Amino acid sequence: MRTYVGLVHYPVYNKNMEKIASSITTLDIHDIARLSRTYEVKRFYVITPLIDQQRIVKAIIDHWTKGYGAKYNPDRKEAIRLVDVVESIEEAVRKIEEREKERPVIIATDAKRQKRFISFEDARKILEKKTVFILFGTAWGLHKEVLENVDFVLEPIYGRGDYRHLSVRTAAAIIIDRLIGEG
Amino acid sequence: MRTYVGLVHYPVYNKNMEKIASSITTLDIHDIARLSRTYEVKRFYVITPLIDQQRIVKAIIDHWTKGYGAKYNPDRKEAIRLVDVVESIEEAVRKIEEREKERPVIIATDAKRQKRFISFEDARKILEKKTVFILFGTAWGLHKEVLENVDFVLEPIYGRGDYRHLSVRTAAAIIIDRLIGEG
Repeated sequence: MRTYVGLVHYPVYNKNMEKIASSITTLDIHDIARLSRTYEVKRFYVITPLIDQQRIVKAIIDHWTKGYGAKYNPDRKEAIRLVDVVESIEEAVRKIEEREKERPVIIATDAKRQKRFISFEDARKILEKKTVFILFGTAWGLHKEVLENVDFVLEPIYGRGDYRHLSVRTAAAIIIDRLIGEG
Repeated sequence: MRTYVGLVHYPVYNKNMEKIASSITTLDIHDIARLSRTYEVKRFYVITPLIDQQRIVKAIIDHWTKGYGAKYNPDRKEAIRLVDVVESIEEAVRKIEEREKERPVIIATDAKRQKRFISFEDARKILEKKTVFILFGTAWGLHKEVLENVDFVLEPIYGRGDYRHLSVRTAAAIIIDRLIGEG
């Protein structure tokens, strides 16, 4: 499969539904990198336009792939080397196009059902055939200017009740397992 | 469903396969509480015999259910109030027995296939009928004295390759979704 994952820090919403650039959460990078390695995702793009935040991500990558961390925990190295940091969704798309020689189908994720939503079942079929770029939003979720410009928005995770407040780490795990897992 | 979740900080392994009590990771508590609320798990037991670590968990619970956090983020309050801190797996089992008037079926989880393993499909059937207590291990996983004394050990998450190093947060998300999710 030719599946790519992006963790978007801009443009996303804050608690008051204003457009912001969110901060990097170190554990997000580790958790989603390990998840990506487990499910053989080809590359995991951490997306932020803020230079100091890009530096933090690069420091994490260096520590775990070249620094002390690489010796201390080689398993982590295998996961972290899938991580790349880019300034925008567009830059990630360009990099994927360069590697795969085709434009990826872009599937965004959201906790609410959006226009142009796609079921897990249908999304799974696309992943089997095409290059796909799955976008996860940090903070209070992907800004509508992202949701309105992707190919599809994945249906939400419903769980058992009406509570829709998973962390991006756990939501990404459930989504990747449903889309790529054995079953 | 009468499903309970436990996050075990003792007895677990460290990197050198020694028996230890691990430290609390704040994000584990938030992530697994939100997951528990999403899938209508009845109670989430954080298990540690260390008094100072128990205090940290209690401070988190108080902050988000009674303190400033409860006002700032009522959604988080709904999740965190499922959390209880106990000193041992046995204490959690006793509390579940008191609530449900029956002994729970205890299902442990591990990254490797163990004796008395149970498939996700079979475990799902048990959850539909009985009180079940699912145990997740922190650090390098549940000690064998736990694995040898539970009713079942769930089959591992295989992903797509041979990499078996998910965080406990993301592993718990995938497992809970597979056992309790709509599908």
